[in-house]
Amino acid sequence: MRTFVVIGQTASASEDFSLDDLPGSSGRLDVLLRCLRAALLFSHGLRPDARVYLVLRGGPQAPRVLKVDGATCKFLRPDERSLATLVKKTLAAAAQARGGGFVELRPGLALAAGDLECVHVELGEAALYVLEPGAADIRTQDLAPGNQVFFVGDHAGFDEATRAELAALSARPLGVGPLSLHSDDVVALVSNELDRRADTAGSARS
Amino acid sequence: MRTFVVIGQTASASEDFSLDDLPGSSGRLDVLLRCLRAALLFSHGLRPDARVYLVLRGGPQAPRVLKVDGATCKFLRPDERSLATLVKKTLAAAAQARGGGFVELRPGLALAAGDLECVHVELGEAALYVLEPGAADIRTQDLAPGNQVFFVGDHAGFDEATRAELAALSARPLGVGPLSLHSDDVVALVSNELDRRADTAGSARS
Repeated sequence: MRTFVVIGQTASASEDFSLDDLPGSSGRLDVLLRCLRAALLFSHGLRPDARVYLVLRGGPQAPRVLKVDGATCKFLRPDERSLATLVKKTLAAAAQARGGGFVELRPGLALAAGDLECVHVELGEAALYVLEPGAADIRTQDLAPGNQVFFVGDHAGFDEATRAELAALSARPLGVGPLSLHSDDVVALVSNELDRRADTAGSARS
Repeated sequence: MRTFVVIGQTASASEDFSLDDLPGSSGRLDVLLRCLRAALLFSHGLRPDARVYLVLRGGPQAPRVLKVDGATCKFLRPDERSLATLVKKTLAAAAQARGGGFVELRPGLALAAGDLECVHVELGEAALYVLEPGAADIRTQDLAPGNQVFFVGDHAGFDEATRAELAALSARPLGVGPLSLHSDDVVALVSNELDRRADTAGSARS
């Protein structure tokens, strides 16, 4: 299982944003939606081995975390407006949510009231990585077998407190090349690297 | 210079699509817009060494080709609705365009009435590649120095006539890994491979 945790420092945790101006009204939720597409969708549908947590730290309902599970989610479309509509409805359906972990509101979509601590309790024995410009190149690094979790920043990267929290969890820094890229491109590159390794491992076994 | 030519078999060549339903009303122009973002934008702005041609083969004004130049384009935003708005305005501004090659309608945005032949006359001595699932892995292939052009299909890949046309141009097939991916992810992966090679070449020179 591969898990991406995308931290939206200003992304709206409530449904009061406009589909007609996502960047301006949702605290750049659009950045997180593009990560969601890159992590879960490929040409032939949904990746059943991928899961995404969107950490929403903006607006009056913040913090909240939306979990999207590739194995059980249905009808996920790739365009931003469709994804934004789905997230908006899910956030609205949980207007009264209070603590207690994730509540599934639609197939494969669950919401929790809280911040990264809601994610941590679900990760189990996974290996933790944090994607950072300039860090050790993922292509040259050994990755732990089993479950892997990748923390991804938004358009502004990570704030200092989050950086310290991830360091305290011993999340290992990884990079994807010489330039600082959009978050969704980073997710696409990591997904491709994992696809390649799974393919090589599969070939070696067969 | 890196050039991506994205061929939209049904993507609208006229402005009569709805920003509120891009996938349903624009012949999947949304797929091409996501490729545009992946090719031209990174964390710190526009890539000055990248250029994109969107081949629009859908609707009453088809075929038309929209060229977007990273060196001269301004204010390109990453979200789909902003990109769609820009394309819509550009297509509307050229309602009367007839033959004669590309006409620049906004800084860095030019439109031509025609199909791939409008692109070919601009490519010069570039090396041509066509991105195809299952083709030789770009990571292991030598790429010609100088200008490189990558032809990319839409959500439905390439039609047979286009495939034959690209083969006649001796465009070399390249792949990006074991899975068939969304077109914008393919563009992101090729861009990253080129970034890495440019970085290595730069280090070797210095």
